[in-house]
Amino acid sequence: MSLEDPVVITCSISGSIANRDQCPAIPYTPEEYAAEARRIVDEGGVMIHVHARSPDGRPSYEVEDFRAITAAILDEVHDVIVNYSTGAIGVPVEKRIAYLRALKPEVAALNMGSMNYAKYSRSRKDFVFTAVFANPFDEIIAFLEVMREEGIKPEHECFDTGHIGSLAPLVDMGVLEPPLHVSCVMGVVGGVPPSARNLAHMAENVPEGSHWGVIGISRRQWLLVAASLTLGGSVRVGLEDNFYLPDGAMARSNGDLVAKARQMTEDVGRRPATVAQARELLGVPRRAEA
Amino acid sequence: MSLEDPVVITCSISGSIANRDQCPAIPYTPEEYAAEARRIVDEGGVMIHVHARSPDGRPSYEVEDFRAITAAILDEVHDVIVNYSTGAIGVPVEKRIAYLRALKPEVAALNMGSMNYAKYSRSRKDFVFTAVFANPFDEIIAFLEVMREEGIKPEHECFDTGHIGSLAPLVDMGVLEPPLHVSCVMGVVGGVPPSARNLAHMAENVPEGSHWGVIGISRRQWLLVAASLTLGGSVRVGLEDNFYLPDGAMARSNGDLVAKARQMTEDVGRRPATVAQARELLGVPRRAEA
Amino acid sequence: MSLEDPVVITCSISGSIANRDQCPAIPYTPEEYAAEARRIVDEGGVMIHVHARSPDGRPSYEVEDFRAITAAILDEVHDVIVNYSTGAIGVPVEKRIAYLRALKPEVAALNMGSMNYAKYSRSRKDFVFTAVFANPFDEIIAFLEVMREEGIKPEHECFDTGHIGSLAPLVDMGVLEPPLHVSCVMGVVGGVPPSARNLAHMAENVPEGSHWGVIGISRRQWLLVAASLTLGGSVRVGLEDNFYLPDGAMARSNGDLVAKARQMTEDVGRRPATVAQARELLGVPRRAEA
Amino acid sequence: MSLEDPVVITCSISGSIANRDQCPAIPYTPEEYAAEARRIVDEGGVMIHVHARSPDGRPSYEVEDFRAITAAILDEVHDVIVNYSTGAIGVPVEKRIAYLRALKPEVAALNMGSMNYAKYSRSRKDFVFTAVFANPFDEIIAFLEVMREEGIKPEHECFDTGHIGSLAPLVDMGVLEPPLHVSCVMGVVGGVPPSARNLAHMAENVPEGSHWGVIGISRRQWLLVAASLTLGGSVRVGLEDNFYLPDGAMARSNGDLVAKARQMTEDVGRRPATVAQARELLGVPRRAEA
Repeated sequence: MSLEDPVVITCSISGSIANRDQCPAIPYTPEEYAAEARRIVDEGGVMIHVHARSPDGRPSYEVEDFRAITAAILDEVHDVIVNYSTGAIGVPVEKRIAYLRALKPEVAALNMGSMNYAKYSRSRKDFVFTAVFANPFDEIIAFLEVMREEGIKPEHECFDTGHIGSLAPLVDMGVLEPPLHVSCVMGVVGGVPPSARNLAHMAENVPEGSHWGVIGISRRQWLLVAASLTLGGSVRVGLEDNFYLPDGAMARSNGDLVAKARQMTEDVGRRPATVAQARELLGVPRRAEA
Repeated sequence: MSLEDPVVITCSISGSIANRDQCPAIPYTPEEYAAEARRIVDEGGVMIHVHARSPDGRPSYEVEDFRAITAAILDEVHDVIVNYSTGAIGVPVEKRIAYLRALKPEVAALNMGSMNYAKYSRSRKDFVFTAVFANPFDEIIAFLEVMREEGIKPEHECFDTGHIGSLAPLVDMGVLEPPLHVSCVMGVVGGVPPSARNLAHMAENVPEGSHWGVIGISRRQWLLVAASLTLGGSVRVGLEDNFYLPDGAMARSNGDLVAKARQMTEDVGRRPATVAQARELLGVPRRAEA
Repeated sequence: MSLEDPVVITCSISGSIANRDQCPAIPYTPEEYAAEARRIVDEGGVMIHVHARSPDGRPSYEVEDFRAITAAILDEVHDVIVNYSTGAIGVPVEKRIAYLRALKPEVAALNMGSMNYAKYSRSRKDFVFTAVFANPFDEIIAFLEVMREEGIKPEHECFDTGHIGSLAPLVDMGVLEPPLHVSCVMGVVGGVPPSARNLAHMAENVPEGSHWGVIGISRRQWLLVAASLTLGGSVRVGLEDNFYLPDGAMARSNGDLVAKARQMTEDVGRRPATVAQARELLGVPRRAEA
Repeated sequence: MSLEDPVVITCSISGSIANRDQCPAIPYTPEEYAAEARRIVDEGGVMIHVHARSPDGRPSYEVEDFRAITAAILDEVHDVIVNYSTGAIGVPVEKRIAYLRALKPEVAALNMGSMNYAKYSRSRKDFVFTAVFANPFDEIIAFLEVMREEGIKPEHECFDTGHIGSLAPLVDMGVLEPPLHVSCVMGVVGGVPPSARNLAHMAENVPEGSHWGVIGISRRQWLLVAASLTLGGSVRVGLEDNFYLPDGAMARSNGDLVAKARQMTEDVGRRPATVAQARELLGVPRRAEA
């Protein structure tokens, strides 16, 4: 990747954990997802990372919810890359595979390793939560086989350098084919500490010829967005990762966050990718219309 | 840490997985541990990392086996730092805490995170084994509390940058006090890929004022030893990590491996630490005699 | 330095090479310098790097021109750090020392090494100019002795890692006292290539406890500004270094450039330093009024 | 370059500054050069970097001295890569070009930038010497044109990151063709400070597909040799750069130094290149016999 490459701006439209008491802009219904998708695309977002919800806002892993949300989004914006989450603690793999099989999104995210997944509060001097986030190699391989069969491009979510290193045996075995699309996820305690230097280092470990970007969780997000832009990477923003603009104001919609990411892209002298450029950079073939 | 600091040469004397069919020099009985300890100390090793075995060679987590082995070692070599393993898959934490409480080694190793722990074979194009190696924060904290109460210095085994990052909240909470003693473990699939650049990067993340070293698993070990020496770090060798000398010959004893590490230390213009220097570098107070 | 530190925004108000045919906003007369200084300060700049000009716009190394410009600036904005250039090809050291002795600016820039100094055109496939920019150690020492005697804080302009390395013997000899103020100058052919990774690396070489920032020359400037901000550094912008805003529009004044730097500072979650904070960060004592 | 690549071990057989009062093994006469070449080749050296001397030991830039030394070396060892120095302070470029034209060595070294070139003594708290080492772009281009015409492969001696960056415009202009052969020279005050991290960083700046190695000057040499070996680079040792073995003993011949470099190569699990492999790695075609 090079600084001359356009920047793929992805938006994580909803997440599954936070709710509207915390941030009123989070979409619950397919119509709300569609309205947010419109704002995302209008501001320069080209890929939308979807966690499904049932219309009352609870997280959903049902095919029908993913289907309704995806249809609403594509009906509204026509051309955008839809990317499904596959990660969850406590939801069977089969359930998470079922909606990939049924709906064949262009891209699906895939967690590349196990880790302690925690949040720590300096003011309380205590952990807010801790968990073991288990993503064993056999589950990873099961997902990759489905994605290969269904023509879904994996986005490899890597929370540490070893998660990137775990790509090599999978390429060697043939369950994974370059060019890869790697996202460095930073800001979770237990994963790589969020800094520009650590991002530069993770990017160094990404296999030659791959596309990479950053997913910054919580308050350091904007600094990580800038760091990725200066290092030649792409970026993800969105209400799943962070509700706030750099000035501390809560975003009124995902569009606000995407607009800021686009402006920061232009400030460093780079340009946002179009949907077509993003497909080319990520190695995602355009599907035939249904 | 600086290139002027002496190098702490640690030896992992036995491990728990391999057996004498694979390498005849592995000690099983307390007497054999003692004889190996003699060779280690004679060649310049100052800390011995112990996995206990019952006299028939099977891995043991019993207080009595740790006690007999430790007594035999200290009876033979008098002054060396004894360091107990606390890691295991499938052994209850309570059992691993019991021998710390009972025997109060000067140092105990502690795994700082969860991860996929795997071995891959390029020739077979398949994993040799894969597991989720879970080391949740509550277990880490339980171990640290025991170590603090018993005056045992933790050696933080970090298989990735995020494991090093996990030290910060523990220091902030007060369950851990600098200076820290951090070992970067490299060579396990699922953890950080083994390279000089990755070691340099992990070392950059080690909190200021800490001591650090490398533990290289399997064939890249000697390259990692050299890399650590050039970066200002310490080193561990030993039959747990690797049976072979750089020329491909199987070591006849841990002493062969320690002798090679010492010679490599001197080749780059550094010097091995004495036991007293190692205690000072690691922040380990000498115990009063029983 | 830390990401929590405020960012010192410096503006190189005029330079000595470009002229108003190239950029109409470049100040020539003391009144024009003062008007630009007002715009700089209003937008958040706290240090002004001055090359003197005679009122017809030609570069000047005369005490009287430096005096008139400085007086006009301080009369207009009262509190700002004035920083004099001391670099030049073909102007005797004595002349460049004379205005330091006479006027005792709070800060003076100092080139820390010799180098090829060139500009290359990819479209012409040829060098636009090349020169040997000689800054021998004896000249550096002569400047440092004057600065120490006159209470002037040096800003060490480092065009490559070796220029930073050249600080160590000077500190050891006692001609230089920490904390140091180091600027990494990037974008000149012959010096370090302009990239975020190279900036991260130069910053690693800056002696512990020093303040550092980036000076980006020409089109990569804004990317380097963002990189420095994400790495914990400070920034310089201004018409000496670059005429253009990120969108390609020519700046109507130095104020436009400073405003963009300030906004980029805030976008990554950092804040601009006040003049008082800048003095503290750089180790510049406030002078008694004349 | 990869850790799987064999290591090109180069020996700088004589240098031009030191003399036999300082180190009795330095060759002066063609016969002595030949005897040293024999020891170098027997121990695993495959390239010999030659500064000529007249038979009384004074540095020489005369064609006849280069010719006699080269003939004696090749008569003795038959197959080795001969590499001529072209650097000097105070010797006209024409003179340094004349022996290239006349003798067409397989490789010639070329200094890639200007710099302060100094030696500092911590014990004396003073510089031992300082100079401006000027290597302007027009001289570099003059050398490169001769080398291209005569089929001589340049070895780019880079004392800092900017010297590596200076390769790009020359490649773009067409005076230089990849693959390049880059040597990172470390240990001169004014150039990049000698550390493993700085070497890793310089290597990152080397254009893709090039061969690179380290030239460590003085006491840190062995540490830099180890660092280069762990990073995938090649190495140079020899009496020009350092008289001493790691244990502090003065080398009795260049062979002692090469033997140590070879042993260190094998210790990290790499292997020394044969002459044929070295030619392939460096892009040096075997010449037809005269």
